[in-house]
Amino acid sequence: MMNRPHGPLKVALLGCGVVGSKTAQLLTEQAGELAARVGRPLELVAVGDRRTSIPGIDAGLLTPDLDALARRKDLDVVVELLGGIEPARSLILAAIESGTSVVTANKALLARHGGELFAAAQAHGVDLYYEAAVGGAIPIIRPLRESLVADSVSAVMGIVNGTTNYILDQMHTHGVTFAEALADAQRLGFAEADPTADVEGLDAAAKAALLASLAFHTRVTLDQVDCEGITKITRDDIAAAREMDCVIKLLARCAVQPDGAIAVGVHPTMVPTTHPLASVSGAFNAVFVELEWADKLMFMGPGAGGRPTASAVVGDVVTAARNRVRGVPGHGESSYNEPRIADPGSVASRFYLRMLVQDTPGVLATIAACFARHQVSIQAVRQTPQGPEEDHLAVLGVVTHRALGASIDATVAELRTLGEVDERIRVIRVEGE
Amino acid sequence: MMNRPHGPLKVALLGCGVVGSKTAQLLTEQAGELAARVGRPLELVAVGDRRTSIPGIDAGLLTPDLDALARRKDLDVVVELLGGIEPARSLILAAIESGTSVVTANKALLARHGGELFAAAQAHGVDLYYEAAVGGAIPIIRPLRESLVADSVSAVMGIVNGTTNYILDQMHTHGVTFAEALADAQRLGFAEADPTADVEGLDAAAKAALLASLAFHTRVTLDQVDCEGITKITRDDIAAAREMDCVIKLLARCAVQPDGAIAVGVHPTMVPTTHPLASVSGAFNAVFVELEWADKLMFMGPGAGGRPTASAVVGDVVTAARNRVRGVPGHGESSYNEPRIADPGSVASRFYLRMLVQDTPGVLATIAACFARHQVSIQAVRQTPQGPEEDHLAVLGVVTHRALGASIDATVAELRTLGEVDERIRVIRVEGE
Repeated sequence: MMNRPHGPLKVALLGCGVVGSKTAQLLTEQAGELAARVGRPLELVAVGDRRTSIPGIDAGLLTPDLDALARRKDLDVVVELLGGIEPARSLILAAIESGTSVVTANKALLARHGGELFAAAQAHGVDLYYEAAVGGAIPIIRPLRESLVADSVSAVMGIVNGTTNYILDQMHTHGVTFAEALADAQRLGFAEADPTADVEGLDAAAKAALLASLAFHTRVTLDQVDCEGITKITRDDIAAAREMDCVIKLLARCAVQPDGAIAVGVHPTMVPTTHPLASVSGAFNAVFVELEWADKLMFMGPGAGGRPTASAVVGDVVTAARNRVRGVPGHGESSYNEPRIADPGSVASRFYLRMLVQDTPGVLATIAACFARHQVSIQAVRQTPQGPEEDHLAVLGVVTHRALGASIDATVAELRTLGEVDERIRVIRVEGE
Repeated sequence: MMNRPHGPLKVALLGCGVVGSKTAQLLTEQAGELAARVGRPLELVAVGDRRTSIPGIDAGLLTPDLDALARRKDLDVVVELLGGIEPARSLILAAIESGTSVVTANKALLARHGGELFAAAQAHGVDLYYEAAVGGAIPIIRPLRESLVADSVSAVMGIVNGTTNYILDQMHTHGVTFAEALADAQRLGFAEADPTADVEGLDAAAKAALLASLAFHTRVTLDQVDCEGITKITRDDIAAAREMDCVIKLLARCAVQPDGAIAVGVHPTMVPTTHPLASVSGAFNAVFVELEWADKLMFMGPGAGGRPTASAVVGDVVTAARNRVRGVPGHGESSYNEPRIADPGSVASRFYLRMLVQDTPGVLATIAACFARHQVSIQAVRQTPQGPEEDHLAVLGVVTHRALGASIDATVAELRTLGEVDERIRVIRVEGE
């Protein structure tokens, strides 16, 4: 890492959308404070963007040639805010190879190509920081990498996608359908025109991969995450959660399994209202960490938005800049562990199952026997008559004790073969013991 | 900073009470993991303690000569867990002057002599870390120093003393007096035989000084903290809080004032039950940070205890050790700011006042006029008859809008001169706008 002893440290942006504009604004408005905190001024020297004019950005800084910008040899820190895989990946690699430290908020890229990028940063003696990639402004990456580094993490569980949290909140609060809540979120700008990455859980899954990598000192990739979105959540699911004193949250969860494998998943999950995560509402994010020594910790804050994300981005820029001043990069990612990724079927959870059944004597015994055959222990059952009495139909809600995913799958498969049970069976995880 | 390229990094403990024993245990049990995370093994080479035998500690490591231990030239990290001012201060200075990085949990020392100690560490090119000094295992020192370093903190507010939080909890939950709750806490080991530092707010005040120093990039000392303990909180106060949908918490609070001065105080405060800090119960700690860019963040976890504190201590040891391996200390404290410390009288808050008054026509008008003369605007009043009807006495509870401390003092002084008002007037801060 080069250490230029004089003059300002040079910072450039790749991409200048909402977060980029706020990052530029923060660098400018806080220039005096940042200089005092780093020991030398930070100067925004270039903004890579195809536009020739961006409100609030000096037009002289703009350049459409991102590739040339990434290859400049005189930069100290490049901030990548383009999102997506390419050209972000190639540009970050080019910057690293040019000896420039990199700050990014790109969870999708890191969850796919983190191994390659961190190795390149280490090889070239520069920093690759990404606090803004998970939980917006919430400090969670650095605490996991540094503050909690002596401890053994047993589980990390979080609400890490504000869009789905907002949608589920609306469904709980106003009794609307998923489609209505999504349309509402889109109108308010909380969801994108193509909401797939959010509502199918992919954004949360990328963050789960990053959290698991840090927590377990390994490298988990997006394709290793067991991912389920919220598009199938119905008003009946919401009502059932309420009856059980729960709220449905899209939880990212990584945990060490009894056999040492690690489970990494994203699932809509019924969370008891007494759990600290239950009250995390709207666009807020929260991450809950369970450790062998430190016990339980929770981190909460705004999970997105231009200003909070810019705060996290420039925090990383300051840390990378301080390292430039000292002439040594920070300690990189530690990924010495190579645990097995648990097969989803081998991961235990409590489950809620809801099914339409014939309300005839003996049906509950038949169904209970089916659960028992698959070693699934039932914690509670609630049977509610459905439709006209002469139809003899009821909705059966079953909450299980902790059971393996595979056992639940097998139970559901067999239940579907029973004449007394409608084949449309809902299955939702339930947090807790 | 010396950089020995081979062999284990040498760690020594000064003091081996509950936290020291757990620190030694963590270093031993996690030795393999820690070596992988640092890049070289960490070896516990000495434990300074007067005893010749400590359960779980190899007797060969024990030495009663703390001074000689602190002056050893071959150590990489010394962990100070003696507490108190001397000999901790001299030993830390000796270690720093010997080129050794220091980790401490000693908030009382840092809040009094932090300036001297941080300057010495910087002069000798070593680290002085103290994550365990505030909030036990909760990562709050490093996030404030690094993750949030680009932002402007407007306020930090926290429950940072588990003993008082437990006592206030018991008073709320079981309706016991302060003395009863304290005795209970002492019996359970949650309060010390001499509980002064906790119940008089001094421990929380030391932590407030450290948080304010970090948040505002300055150096606040213990004697600058406006400190009030919980010893005078009565069952009537608790009942009044409940009537207002509040709970009383001992809050440490530092905030930028409109004139740029910073207010640093510790006060029993009525916190609305809807505030995230209200539900932080028992021995848990939580710190709430308000920032210009990142908005509101909360950090929560166990505030004390051997294992959680050891997790934070060894987290610092690992970071200091990683810096030794790289041959460069971390970026030290930034304390370039020299803001004025606000006079307590110039700090605004909402206040609750309770007084015994003569329940006669016109008394409320008289009292309201007194508040108005001192520019104190009343938000709500509740009058409750007290004692036999023929006594014509009532308890008057008043909640003010935000008002200056000095205005409240002047109001109380004048109220005491009124014949209609008993001179025993209770005043408690109320959180919120």
